[in-house]
Amino acid sequence: MKKEILRNRIRALREKLKNLEQDTVWVLQPENRRYLSGFKAQDLLFTESSGSLLITEKSALLLTDSRYTLEAEREAVDFEVVTLKKGLIESLPDLLSDLGTRHLGFEEGYVTVEAHKGLLKGLRKMGTRPKLTPFKGLVEDMREIKDAEEIRFLKASGDLMSKILADVIPRIKPGRAEKEIASEIEDRAREGGAEGLAFPSIVASGPNSALPHAAPTTRKIREGEPITLDVGVRVEGYCCDMTRTIFLGKPKPEFAKIYRIVRAAQLAAMEKVLPGAESTAVDGTARGMIRDEGYGEYFGHSLGHGVGLEPHERPRLGPRNPVELKEGMVVTVEPGIYLPGKGGVRLEHMVLITRKGPRILTRDDHFYDF
Amino acid sequence: MKKEILRNRIRALREKLKNLEQDTVWVLQPENRRYLSGFKAQDLLFTESSGSLLITEKSALLLTDSRYTLEAEREAVDFEVVTLKKGLIESLPDLLSDLGTRHLGFEEGYVTVEAHKGLLKGLRKMGTRPKLTPFKGLVEDMREIKDAEEIRFLKASGDLMSKILADVIPRIKPGRAEKEIASEIEDRAREGGAEGLAFPSIVASGPNSALPHAAPTTRKIREGEPITLDVGVRVEGYCCDMTRTIFLGKPKPEFAKIYRIVRAAQLAAMEKVLPGAESTAVDGTARGMIRDEGYGEYFGHSLGHGVGLEPHERPRLGPRNPVELKEGMVVTVEPGIYLPGKGGVRLEHMVLITRKGPRILTRDDHFYDF
Repeated sequence: MKKEILRNRIRALREKLKNLEQDTVWVLQPENRRYLSGFKAQDLLFTESSGSLLITEKSALLLTDSRYTLEAEREAVDFEVVTLKKGLIESLPDLLSDLGTRHLGFEEGYVTVEAHKGLLKGLRKMGTRPKLTPFKGLVEDMREIKDAEEIRFLKASGDLMSKILADVIPRIKPGRAEKEIASEIEDRAREGGAEGLAFPSIVASGPNSALPHAAPTTRKIREGEPITLDVGVRVEGYCCDMTRTIFLGKPKPEFAKIYRIVRAAQLAAMEKVLPGAESTAVDGTARGMIRDEGYGEYFGHSLGHGVGLEPHERPRLGPRNPVELKEGMVVTVEPGIYLPGKGGVRLEHMVLITRKGPRILTRDDHFYDF
Repeated sequence: MKKEILRNRIRALREKLKNLEQDTVWVLQPENRRYLSGFKAQDLLFTESSGSLLITEKSALLLTDSRYTLEAEREAVDFEVVTLKKGLIESLPDLLSDLGTRHLGFEEGYVTVEAHKGLLKGLRKMGTRPKLTPFKGLVEDMREIKDAEEIRFLKASGDLMSKILADVIPRIKPGRAEKEIASEIEDRAREGGAEGLAFPSIVASGPNSALPHAAPTTRKIREGEPITLDVGVRVEGYCCDMTRTIFLGKPKPEFAKIYRIVRAAQLAAMEKVLPGAESTAVDGTARGMIRDEGYGEYFGHSLGHGVGLEPHERPRLGPRNPVELKEGMVVTVEPGIYLPGKGGVRLEHMVLITRKGPRILTRDDHFYDF
């Protein structure tokens, strides 16, 4: 990550701070932390943070413990790395006092009731006690529009995943278990230099493909049934998210029919993914086509979502909460039809929104013209 | 996990409920959830729970989503599995209303400020609004004393890890990188049928061994320096935690000296690990010996901790907060001396507390008589 890009992000956050009552923000969410500081460490446990940021108009601190000090100093070059000797919550009052904090903002989705209570208790012992206010989405908003370097990483991530699928799909044969295919994808991700998977792979065959989020099982794949692969790797922190439904041999007529509908809905919706479009209108294009064919009740989830450092992030493309799509956003377009007990079809592209139209980042030719 | 054991746990929790003001408890913490229900799923993301429990005197519900319904029904046989159609926080008010909850207890360390706020808001719309009270340690307390089946799994976990180390240690040669050794341990854990690692392996050589929690690096291992391996696998959910410091060739005299001190402290402390002993006294035995040799300031962490479904759980064996040790607890005994910039030694056994004395669950003979 280039230094200048990270500096611009801190600058942009400080601009936002000027319009807020808070003079200090505390950032714990791992992707927000990485986005602002360049610090790549992941949190190993729900209850064990590998680091958090305290940012004021003048200061930028990365609080961590001795396990991560060296890594933090190497990666978060514009931050002053503070190696905590005691727990994070116990350390905060003194640090806030040193920073002269009068009003601290914290991420409400990443601070537990226990941590909040402990912090309030610690602050009560201070002479001038800072005010505590939860916030939400401050950094996530900034992450919606991707810069050139982020787009490069998302492209690399899409390219690697497309290549892996192009290698693995021809090796899917009747009798192989869903779990075997998932392991093969994971092995190739590692060999291909991915930082990891963006999320646990979905390989769902036959009736399992009717569950949008099925975990791979030992079920053996058969001819003629849908096999849905929803997979993604992570490159330099950036996630890919792509889905293909494939068939071995000739699909049963009903599956070929829903495949045609889903594919047509995907293509039509993708044409609407343009700067200035309303998210709900894009969702409505695909949803309307599926409904008109009589399958409306079998498409229960949203059409898509933003992708970046997190596999699911802002903006959401669903039937509710309209937001304006903008140049530089990267979103998925993933309609599906799921017939309970029988099987389902989902097709997902990850696309970059440009003035010239949607640019597909998950290229490959595993689509059928039934 | 035997049905009867799970039933006894729910019964014991309900006994506790009788003495509490809360009539319903909401359990989100993944290991508490597994301990009470048998449901094995892990939480994939901080923000994405795979399930939570609502337990009253009469009812036991496991709330999950469609991804986990089948698994939950198979594993949590004594629970009524509720597949949520909307978010957990949005679903709770109706569920609590159905249960007739007047006072809900929740785990303060596993509910975020955002979730708490959302729940309060949802409850406000209900006719008779239940009271919300945070609790801590209710189920963790139950987990301190291990039953026969848990001991069997902890033994299996210790046996597997001991076998892996016995295989891997002779293959550690000068010039091999720390990361290579860590990968080898991980591969063998998978081959050996472990459910996973209990925590990311530590393989720390030379000056890195002076950091108690160093992550493996590309540093090449050399002769005469300490190499600390702190590793553990998970079997049926139960963690192993063991540490050995080894040397290739003859150690430098200072390292041999601190090794002797650490080993003597470990052996002396282990003799004190008996039912009725005070945790601080056991810690004090090792700490006193290390201090008497002049290395007190180089032993910064606690002597040990409980091990079970979590790699670190109750009881803690440190210099503060005395607790009485009891038969059936499983704890680590892991003194260490860390010389900054030079290197360190840590030796860790996982032991079961019995009336006949400590029973070592991490057997192997990689100890030196320098």
